[in-house]
Amino acid sequence: MSEFTLYIGNKCFSSWSLRPWVAMRHLEIPFEEVLVRLRTPETAANLANVSPTGQVPVLVHKPLNHTGGMVWETLSILEYLADLFPEKKLWPADIGARALARSAATEMHSGFREVRYGWPMNLRRPKGHKPLDAEGEAQRARIEALWRECREKHGKGGPFLFGHFTAADAMYAPVVTRFDTYGGDLAPDTRAYVDAILALPAMRQWYAEAAKEPWPEPGPDE
Amino acid sequence: MSEFTLYIGNKCFSSWSLRPWVAMRHLEIPFEEVLVRLRTPETAANLANVSPTGQVPVLVHKPLNHTGGMVWETLSILEYLADLFPEKKLWPADIGARALARSAATEMHSGFREVRYGWPMNLRRPKGHKPLDAEGEAQRARIEALWRECREKHGKGGPFLFGHFTAADAMYAPVVTRFDTYGGDLAPDTRAYVDAILALPAMRQWYAEAAKEPWPEPGPDE
Repeated sequence: MSEFTLYIGNKCFSSWSLRPWVAMRHLEIPFEEVLVRLRTPETAANLANVSPTGQVPVLVHKPLNHTGGMVWETLSILEYLADLFPEKKLWPADIGARALARSAATEMHSGFREVRYGWPMNLRRPKGHKPLDAEGEAQRARIEALWRECREKHGKGGPFLFGHFTAADAMYAPVVTRFDTYGGDLAPDTRAYVDAILALPAMRQWYAEAAKEPWPEPGPDE
Repeated sequence: MSEFTLYIGNKCFSSWSLRPWVAMRHLEIPFEEVLVRLRTPETAANLANVSPTGQVPVLVHKPLNHTGGMVWETLSILEYLADLFPEKKLWPADIGARALARSAATEMHSGFREVRYGWPMNLRRPKGHKPLDAEGEAQRARIEALWRECREKHGKGGPFLFGHFTAADAMYAPVVTRFDTYGGDLAPDTRAYVDAILALPAMRQWYAEAAKEPWPEPGPDE
């Protein structure tokens, strides 16, 4: 039995759940997962049993001697994993690169609402371009500029934002799926980043499991 | 000349600006501040000159060799300061307390919208109880429960959430002003926490400077 349990929502559309899940799988941190099905009459009660905020993801780490071992909020879970496993290099080693990675990750944590609502993560939707409103398009351009900046300055010619997989890549993983689903023809550098993230074995596993979920197509973004 | 410049908005109501400002003042990290006046016809253009997101706060650290030395997003600025100045203990030393502090800080970074919009920070408003809508009241109760939990588990009998001033206190500092302004009669433990934060010399300085701003009363929350 693993000492970690990650509570997540439906893989088809729970974008927040994907972030710590893909980080832990990619970094080979063993964990058990518990899926709390979203958008049912029992969802709120089920979430209240496992999450202090009524939201997923929540990470329970049994040895952690506080609040029942619970860590919540996606970015805080990633920081906790970075603290526990420094050898996994969840943040870049260079302090300047790390500051940029955290600014990018935090900008994602609280922002890009029009992209998130206009392009809700839905891993079963047939691919096809869906325009965003003006604010959404501005946010989309900002995301692409940020990816470009990180990769040009710190990407070291590799596919990731900071030369190896970091928490910043995890934070943007659901956004990558949105660009793939709704973005239509992408700029070559955006396409390259999207393809690199989608090709990760951990991402392939998440997609495969999302495809097997028996539940109907989702509505708006969670 | 300090090597740090912090770009902030109006002290009367720029709640995000208050967070890193009070942390840096309280921890005696020298910095210069540049106020970008919000809610004027020139604000957007002025912000575009100093911030990659068009928002304040932004910290510029001259020796930081990336993106013009800029660090943005409140929580990322606090993490950067924690990285640079480990002796200031911006996060609790214990990994479990630190996880809780980051969960609480991150919950603030992306949440409590109904409290933020229902009780916009306004340091010149006469104190008086203003009820929130049902969702706002639930968020208010959640904030109070979180403060209580942190102080009971890690407060060590002192006024702060984790025994000494941390980034979690900085993240909630503007919320403290809202409880004081709009909260009416507060539960004794909430009152004690609010009073402790308001009594910090750094908070008194911010209030005094907010009172001297020549601009008219603000509208909704920034």
